[in-house]
Amino acid sequence: MKPIILGAFEINQVNLTSQGMWAHPEQTTHRYTDLDHWVDLAVLLERGGFDFMFVADSYGYPHMNGITRPVVIEQAVEVPNNDPMMLVSAMAAVTERLAFVVTASTTHEHPYANARRFATLDHLTKGRAGWNMVTTSMEVVSELFGTTPVPHDERYARAQDFVDLSYKLLEGSWDDDAVLVDKQRRIYADPAKVREVHHEGPYFTCHGYFDSEPSRQRTPVLFQAGASETGRSFGARNAEVVFLHGRNAQMLREQVDDVRVRTVREGRGEGSVRTVAGLSVLTASSRAEAERRLDAYLDYVDPAAARAYFGAMTGIDLEELDPDMAMADLTTDGSQTQVHRYRHEKVREATADFIRHGMRELILLGTPTQVADQMGELVESTGLDGFLYTPFVTPGSYQEFADDVAPALRAAGLLEHRQAPTFRQALFPDGGPHLPASHPADRVRHVPSGTTR
Amino acid sequence: MKPIILGAFEINQVNLTSQGMWAHPEQTTHRYTDLDHWVDLAVLLERGGFDFMFVADSYGYPHMNGITRPVVIEQAVEVPNNDPMMLVSAMAAVTERLAFVVTASTTHEHPYANARRFATLDHLTKGRAGWNMVTTSMEVVSELFGTTPVPHDERYARAQDFVDLSYKLLEGSWDDDAVLVDKQRRIYADPAKVREVHHEGPYFTCHGYFDSEPSRQRTPVLFQAGASETGRSFGARNAEVVFLHGRNAQMLREQVDDVRVRTVREGRGEGSVRTVAGLSVLTASSRAEAERRLDAYLDYVDPAAARAYFGAMTGIDLEELDPDMAMADLTTDGSQTQVHRYRHEKVREATADFIRHGMRELILLGTPTQVADQMGELVESTGLDGFLYTPFVTPGSYQEFADDVAPALRAAGLLEHRQAPTFRQALFPDGGPHLPASHPADRVRHVPSGTTR
Repeated sequence: MKPIILGAFEINQVNLTSQGMWAHPEQTTHRYTDLDHWVDLAVLLERGGFDFMFVADSYGYPHMNGITRPVVIEQAVEVPNNDPMMLVSAMAAVTERLAFVVTASTTHEHPYANARRFATLDHLTKGRAGWNMVTTSMEVVSELFGTTPVPHDERYARAQDFVDLSYKLLEGSWDDDAVLVDKQRRIYADPAKVREVHHEGPYFTCHGYFDSEPSRQRTPVLFQAGASETGRSFGARNAEVVFLHGRNAQMLREQVDDVRVRTVREGRGEGSVRTVAGLSVLTASSRAEAERRLDAYLDYVDPAAARAYFGAMTGIDLEELDPDMAMADLTTDGSQTQVHRYRHEKVREATADFIRHGMRELILLGTPTQVADQMGELVESTGLDGFLYTPFVTPGSYQEFADDVAPALRAAGLLEHRQAPTFRQALFPDGGPHLPASHPADRVRHVPSGTTR
Repeated sequence: MKPIILGAFEINQVNLTSQGMWAHPEQTTHRYTDLDHWVDLAVLLERGGFDFMFVADSYGYPHMNGITRPVVIEQAVEVPNNDPMMLVSAMAAVTERLAFVVTASTTHEHPYANARRFATLDHLTKGRAGWNMVTTSMEVVSELFGTTPVPHDERYARAQDFVDLSYKLLEGSWDDDAVLVDKQRRIYADPAKVREVHHEGPYFTCHGYFDSEPSRQRTPVLFQAGASETGRSFGARNAEVVFLHGRNAQMLREQVDDVRVRTVREGRGEGSVRTVAGLSVLTASSRAEAERRLDAYLDYVDPAAARAYFGAMTGIDLEELDPDMAMADLTTDGSQTQVHRYRHEKVREATADFIRHGMRELILLGTPTQVADQMGELVESTGLDGFLYTPFVTPGSYQEFADDVAPALRAAGLLEHRQAPTFRQALFPDGGPHLPASHPADRVRHVPSGTTR
């Protein structure tokens, strides 16, 4: 069986999907403003066999029908939150293999500034940077930024224009061999190998050179997680890793297959997109004991905070709906992963489930060996490439995984200590450090892939 | 005599004002993409008695009359350049006192995103963050960002609106005592002490909470360096540290006095703004030997690269001007520090001087004791508070300063090992961690200064 890809799902906030769990006695996420918290976590993840840390992010906070409920502030539901990019260099300095995938929105960042930030991170991490491309639907962010809310499909049109310009900047301005750093001849770079970018898109215009010289990966590894039709198309066209949403093997298998079909339709090779699913784990001497541990953790969820959290992400106030209404009948703009996952359920069940689980989908319980076996079966039966591990408490849940589950996974050949020159090559061992020739970014390169690289 | 404030002038590029000096055999700035380069530098600066690292920055590169000359790329004149903010957390993790002042433009960043980035840095550094507030005049950046160039005075109107909103976000949304982190009572923050910001300015609109909880300093220490009338007014109104431009005691004294007069006129206390000037130093067993060392360094300047650099910052092509023309007769939009400093000279002299010195203004030569004495005399005769030390080569110039000049300064009582809870308190030992009540930001606080802090 092939080894899995393993990421840690993180956020620069005090609650990670389980709203209220910041108060658990074992929880240290209230130290999120402390650099030591992150540095220690990065070291632990690398030791535990994780390939990358994924840092979710969004500006804003739960705000519905013109109000933010007091529970949002009281339980720190998505607010306070800090910038995730600022964490990376300190963690990169104490690790060698761990990669860092950071979220940045195509709705609220500027593509030139964003490309320079990611190029800088890819330089400083020596090719261990990833970009989780998101669009922003929360109206409150428009109010914070003084912009007009962008309708769903237009958000993706804007996202495509954003990444098209990003490709030109990251791949099309400096040739791979433009930088010489030849002190003897006093030539830093060859002007003949640096070219102006010209972009006149529907949303963005740019004329000139890219400020950053090429980093090891040039473009950071591209992540995406949209569940809507438009979101899936965008992912199949642009992403290298797609974050799936499913609570069982059947749902995941459907999505893995869907990603394969769409990727091929986009003219990219069948294996050119990796799929990962969210995963939480609790181990004990028996499954019953692990279930008791789960209950004890989830007791810390604050139901009102969880409902506000759902509202923030969907614009839907669960308390105002008929409990017997089918979730599939809800009118949304189609972007909501959180609505999509409950499309077969009624409001009553969806509410109860969301309060209990937040965004957690797969929760595996049992002895370490049982958990490792379940992970193996999931990968086998779905074609999934790996997992985004979501802790209950930090650092405890990571320590538990590193000490108990990882050895069982290694024994089963499911986890390896990857040694690759770049994050992209860790994910795609048969490829090079750059986006492959089958990726749309190749079209903006001046030197065809394979001639100088 | 009171100890000086000492900063290091840095940039996330290969040339630091002397265009071409990247190729000097002792120079390691071509390693600017390597995190170890920065981590080692931060450790060296802290050991050497520096209070802060100042990182200059601008998007873009020299581009005049529609072209970028090949020498710009060949000698790396301002390009390639990487984002400076990404460097901070790694350097903060290996230092305890050193502060980090990062440049961000009010012309091209978004105030909400910018405030969250700086709040995050102030958290991660435990109150060691500073913001060098700049406006961007280079037309090439407008072309890169797809925006319309903003005329000079309007840039400052926009800058004022930008900082007015920043104050509301950083100082007016969360009260100092809003965050409780009370696990026993399960209360993270008190909703009654978090308030929505409402801003409808001429350039920016914002309604809602600020995402970040208060950091130690709340607002990072505010730096500014404008030489124009509008720039000086902006600095006197908003800045806590002003970077002056002058090549002798008289020029500096005039500016120090000007800052004092303007600060008082703005209703702020006389000592509420610190002044620093750029400084380069070369030591040897004699002044003559130090001069020979200076010549040997400046031989590495590439004249064509230096002229392109001047053109980038001013829009003025020195090669096309009558050498006998007075620099004061040049029509510029009034913003250019680089033109202002040559206002008493002719084009011929200005060109020759700029090629040799770039943006270096004070260059002190002699034995370590002679240099320390000259620094003391400058401070004494001008009222200047300190210096921004600009190296010729890295790390050599810093090592030289730390090993030779710093001990002589300490012996003269001019340098102290500052131990303050925050960067602001290192600069203003009689004040607190936050902007004082006399600063305009105080007006947007909900709880008057002094009641809870």
